Amino acid sequence: MKVNGYAATEQKAKLIPYSYDLGEIGSEEVDIKVSYCGICHSDLSMINNDWGMTQYPIVPGHEIIGEVIAIGNAVKNVSVGDKVGLGWMSASCMSCEQCMDGEHHLCPQSEATIVGRNGGFADKVRGHWSWAIPLPEGIDMSKAGPLLCGGITVFNPIILAGVKPTDKVGVIGIGGLGHMAVKFLKHWGCEVIAFSSNPAKKKSILNMGASQVIDSTSTEELESINGKLDFILNTTNVSLDWNSYLTALAPKGKFHTVGAVLEPMEIPAFSLIMGEKSVGGSPIGSPALTKTMLDFCVRHNIYPDVEEFPMAKVNEAIEHLENGKARFRIVLKNK
Amino acid sequence: MKVNGYAATEQKAKLIPYSYDLGEIGSEEVDIKVSYCGICHSDLSMINNDWGMTQYPIVPGHEIIGEVIAIGNAVKNVSVGDKVGLGWMSASCMSCEQCMDGEHHLCPQSEATIVGRNGGFADKVRGHWSWAIPLPEGIDMSKAGPLLCGGITVFNPIILAGVKPTDKVGVIGIGGLGHMAVKFLKHWGCEVIAFSSNPAKKKSILNMGASQVIDSTSTEELESINGKLDFILNTTNVSLDWNSYLTALAPKGKFHTVGAVLEPMEIPAFSLIMGEKSVGGSPIGSPALTKTMLDFCVRHNIYPDVEEFPMAKVNEAIEHLENGKARFRIVLKNK
Repeated sequence: MKVNGYAATEQKAKLIPYSYDLGEIGSEEVDIKVSYCGICHSDLSMINNDWGMTQYPIVPGHEIIGEVIAIGNAVKNVSVGDKVGLGWMSASCMSCEQCMDGEHHLCPQSEATIVGRNGGFADKVRGHWSWAIPLPEGIDMSKAGPLLCGGITVFNPIILAGVKPTDKVGVIGIGGLGHMAVKFLKHWGCEVIAFSSNPAKKKSILNMGASQVIDSTSTEELESINGKLDFILNTTNVSLDWNSYLTALAPKGKFHTVGAVLEPMEIPAFSLIMGEKSVGGSPIGSPALTKTMLDFCVRHNIYPDVEEFPMAKVNEAIEHLENGKARFRIVLKNK
Repeated sequence: MKVNGYAATEQKAKLIPYSYDLGEIGSEEVDIKVSYCGICHSDLSMINNDWGMTQYPIVPGHEIIGEVIAIGNAVKNVSVGDKVGLGWMSASCMSCEQCMDGEHHLCPQSEATIVGRNGGFADKVRGHWSWAIPLPEGIDMSKAGPLLCGGITVFNPIILAGVKPTDKVGVIGIGGLGHMAVKFLKHWGCEVIAFSSNPAKKKSILNMGASQVIDSTSTEELESINGKLDFILNTTNVSLDWNSYLTALAPKGKFHTVGAVLEPMEIPAFSLIMGEKSVGGSPIGSPALTKTMLDFCVRHNIYPDVEEFPMAKVNEAIEHLENGKARFRIVLKNK
């Protein structure tokens, strides 16, 4: 099957129209006609080969919403015509300890949608049935794409850390991921404090449900919440004053990062010990949890704030994101 | 009431006989006649003023086993004649959020037994009733002292991290704390791997219940368990190759430190994120959990390996500990 998409043919290149043949469908694979695809910072990292694992030409895109148009003869769970989402991952082995435990996203053999394969800035994409997440009835497909990567990335920590509706929580960095985290945690029942370095976003962030926006560049504002937060989620990938945030945690509080800052985090043992605190991290989430999250989103009408661009204007959209102008997530739409 | 004990009158001094008057007993306080008192590394740190909070003269000692000889008029839970243990802490406010939540050890007003007060290298000691833990029937008082500080310090993390009997776990540093951790975890049902840099201890450690002793100075041995451990407890207070131990964790594994290393721990975010791992810490544990631990010890006959010295030979005992000769915990005995 022929796919028409947009690819970078070399590091940091603009995307250009690009066609390739998917070959024969595997017995456990599904082909999806792409309706919408979000743009994630990881797409830029892959275009730029920031992680040294990009294979060119690469069709980016891994926040995909579409319709199943073909299935292999051993596919379970989805049928032709189903509306599905496909996120950062496209395949897991299905038989390792992690897969058998429902943690397919931790499978050592898992395959990312745009690592060694081509993604959703195209009219079609292929993946294993397990990662083609059936969309719940009534979901707004035009806004759902970013939930499949950014959304599940910030939803999973809420489960992992055992966040309770009675908790007071913080979210660091209110961009694509952070703004979804604020919405999830607000609907989780929590009091949400946002940490942002951009005062221009303040009004939007309060509208999303944060009770307070703290200027993360102000030591004084940071100190005003010392000892108050049960959970802090970091969505930025820059070095922070880690101990300030540990100090912001209440006793038994948890700091969780989904931002993969490259320099080691300098964590004082004493800060962990005295308050029984912890620092954790996580990547995306499992297919089962992704489905649960989508149900939760429909129940509470939770969607990212999206800006829509036609797929053909992908380069404009990427420039918009690179310039820090996205409010708060961009979605490409196929004709 | 007059107390006869042994005190350091200045930094790093030998202990000398020292008497002081306890004054009138507070309404919520209990006086304890000391039968046994363990020696903990924190006693040395306080004698040496390593943490800059020592007030001289100081009577060290905070792993106390004895008998209640007097109580204030508002004491609950204990009576004159009761056998009790008193550990690192001697008082909490009883009314803050942490105290009301059963986490008296995290009370911001809590008082440590040998910080600004005098401890158990003496014939008597005083504390708040909440920290005078009633000893369960049948406990071996001569060996129980170290459970009150070192013991609860390594028992609490097992609860905090939710360690399961099916888990494979590691303990770093097999000294006073570490050897109790090995015993607890063995009786918890776990497979226990010990990390030690001292080959002379290997046989003893295997006898305690470890299935394997890994030479923590050997990169090759460390790498042999990559991805295998659900939980690692660090009892040392030196800088380790943190990422090696994070790599030793299985997906969703937890690293927990009770060793207060002074340099920040350098934790790569990527290692936390990819395997949904976490790094936590904790101090001692609550009075309620201390009681639970003592019951568990009696049920399974779990005690530290102790070497007994007469209280009058406290300086010899300290020297034995400082020379790294303790196997594995020293207890002082009153006549």
